[in-house]
Amino acid sequence: MQKIDLQQTAAFLYSCEDAYILIHQSPDGDCVGSGYSLQAVLRQMGKRAKVLCADPIPARYDFLMPEEPEEDFEPQCIISVDVADPKLLGRYREMYGDRVDLCIDHHVSNLLYAKQTLLNADAAAACEILYKLYRFMEMADSEYNVNFTEQIARCLYTGMATDTGCFKFDNTTPETHLYTAQLMRQFPEIRYGRINRNMFDVKAPSRLKAEMLMIQAMEYYLDGKCAMICVTQELREKTGMSEDDTEGLTGLPTQPEGVEVGITLREREPGVYKVSLRSANDVNVSAICQTLGGGGHVKAAGCLVKGELDAVKQTLVEAVRKGMEQA
Amino acid sequence: MQKIDLQQTAAFLYSCEDAYILIHQSPDGDCVGSGYSLQAVLRQMGKRAKVLCADPIPARYDFLMPEEPEEDFEPQCIISVDVADPKLLGRYREMYGDRVDLCIDHHVSNLLYAKQTLLNADAAAACEILYKLYRFMEMADSEYNVNFTEQIARCLYTGMATDTGCFKFDNTTPETHLYTAQLMRQFPEIRYGRINRNMFDVKAPSRLKAEMLMIQAMEYYLDGKCAMICVTQELREKTGMSEDDTEGLTGLPTQPEGVEVGITLREREPGVYKVSLRSANDVNVSAICQTLGGGGHVKAAGCLVKGELDAVKQTLVEAVRKGMEQA
Repeated sequence: MQKIDLQQTAAFLYSCEDAYILIHQSPDGDCVGSGYSLQAVLRQMGKRAKVLCADPIPARYDFLMPEEPEEDFEPQCIISVDVADPKLLGRYREMYGDRVDLCIDHHVSNLLYAKQTLLNADAAAACEILYKLYRFMEMADSEYNVNFTEQIARCLYTGMATDTGCFKFDNTTPETHLYTAQLMRQFPEIRYGRINRNMFDVKAPSRLKAEMLMIQAMEYYLDGKCAMICVTQELREKTGMSEDDTEGLTGLPTQPEGVEVGITLREREPGVYKVSLRSANDVNVSAICQTLGGGGHVKAAGCLVKGELDAVKQTLVEAVRKGMEQA
Repeated sequence: MQKIDLQQTAAFLYSCEDAYILIHQSPDGDCVGSGYSLQAVLRQMGKRAKVLCADPIPARYDFLMPEEPEEDFEPQCIISVDVADPKLLGRYREMYGDRVDLCIDHHVSNLLYAKQTLLNADAAAACEILYKLYRFMEMADSEYNVNFTEQIARCLYTGMATDTGCFKFDNTTPETHLYTAQLMRQFPEIRYGRINRNMFDVKAPSRLKAEMLMIQAMEYYLDGKCAMICVTQELREKTGMSEDDTEGLTGLPTQPEGVEVGITLREREPGVYKVSLRSANDVNVSAICQTLGGGGHVKAAGCLVKGELDAVKQTLVEAVRKGMEQA
């Protein structure tokens, strides 16, 4: 339950042995890059380290993996990275959730569940914190023996790029750009443009099709200031879309010109809708979701709404209308 | 016809009076940001300066404009920024094309048509060169009286971000990130995320619809390594798409997983197709287009092909197949 700084974190890593590094379920570029860069740094210090994730890591992150195979060993130390809440450990929660020794994270919502936590909620990504940590360990003390390698650089770049939507979102900091500049100078041989293409542009044909259907079916409310897409079970069955294909569609309704709030409705079971709200500019969608029993961030929030589809839509549009009046 | 360096460019700007700043037709964020930032710097030095563009500047760039209105005056000096070829001056070519005193540009293809040219083909954007120039003028000599303002910072950021696809493309340099970090530190009040949203995410509903139709009609060849979209006159009439709606669709065919070369066909008149090729990774599409009488960059090139649509498609796919074999 103790917050620690970079220096204390470095000292902890130096003294730990046989570490399991836990990353969150539904893994993304930041937690994968965090996990495998930390594994590499621990290995440089002569320690055994293994990355554990409750879900399979998608193949597009294969280029972040080490060349040396993962060893089997019993952990003496549990570290979590980019994990704000032990719930996100999935099936590893029960075994390790209450015995995390060190957590490194950038979520303001971090529950401080670990014995020691290195938290910087201003960082755009956990990889931004780790960049600073490894630089400190590179300079601070030759005993640490930490050196940036191409693999570590790929990991850190990918984490910072993916968590900021390729430096596009509001969470991007001057440090995100500065550290990226330094990585690019030190490792000009990395194909950053290719990484970006694979992370942001390449889409499975089924995903492209799903987007097309959603744009086709987009509904506009409140003089075009609110746009909504609905992924009903019926639509999923009719089109053969998987649950996966509909993930990450929540950015679509804020794309049309003039939209301030975008709503994505996904039917979980008959009459139960998982609702995601996105704010294009100044409307606080967290406040709107709170009036419906949900919550989240100012620009990205969610809630669960039950009822007939038409009534659910009306409830949502009315809540957005009120939220806009207050903005 | 003479290449000059930053110091000589600064001295030129200090000595010039009553400047017209020419930017290229079909203006983008880089030439608009270059033009209006240079206007601001010249005004700081007590000079009159006016930005001229052959086409109207889209309203989404209004936030780069100065508050003071543009004055009317006869030019004593002609400067062009981000203009590789006087052809790109459009209707201003005849009047000013052969009397450009200074050109500041980052295109390797610059024809060196100006009396003096500041060229850096390694820069991601003309705004990247201008950032360095203004910093030099800020430090070098107090006589220059150049200070970075919020408006200048908005211009430079927008130019660098738009020309790199928000730091995504291969042309992004360590300097692009470094200068961006410095702008963000000096001007934290600028809403960079909002600029990015307006530049990259917001789309006219008609444009969104055009994308949807193109994805729906995408054709795959060569085991999915080549994807093609065709914008025929018939399709344009049937859907009411404007010429504008189909601009910038050339990035779509390289989005599906596995595609190496994306082809966009646009029918200019019956039986005449403007063809754009994009390479996802290593295939040299400039070489492919050269075999068809066209040319361009390694990853983005074009040509004009005449004939029946099916024959044109076959010609293109065959040329791509050969080009892939050579990659």
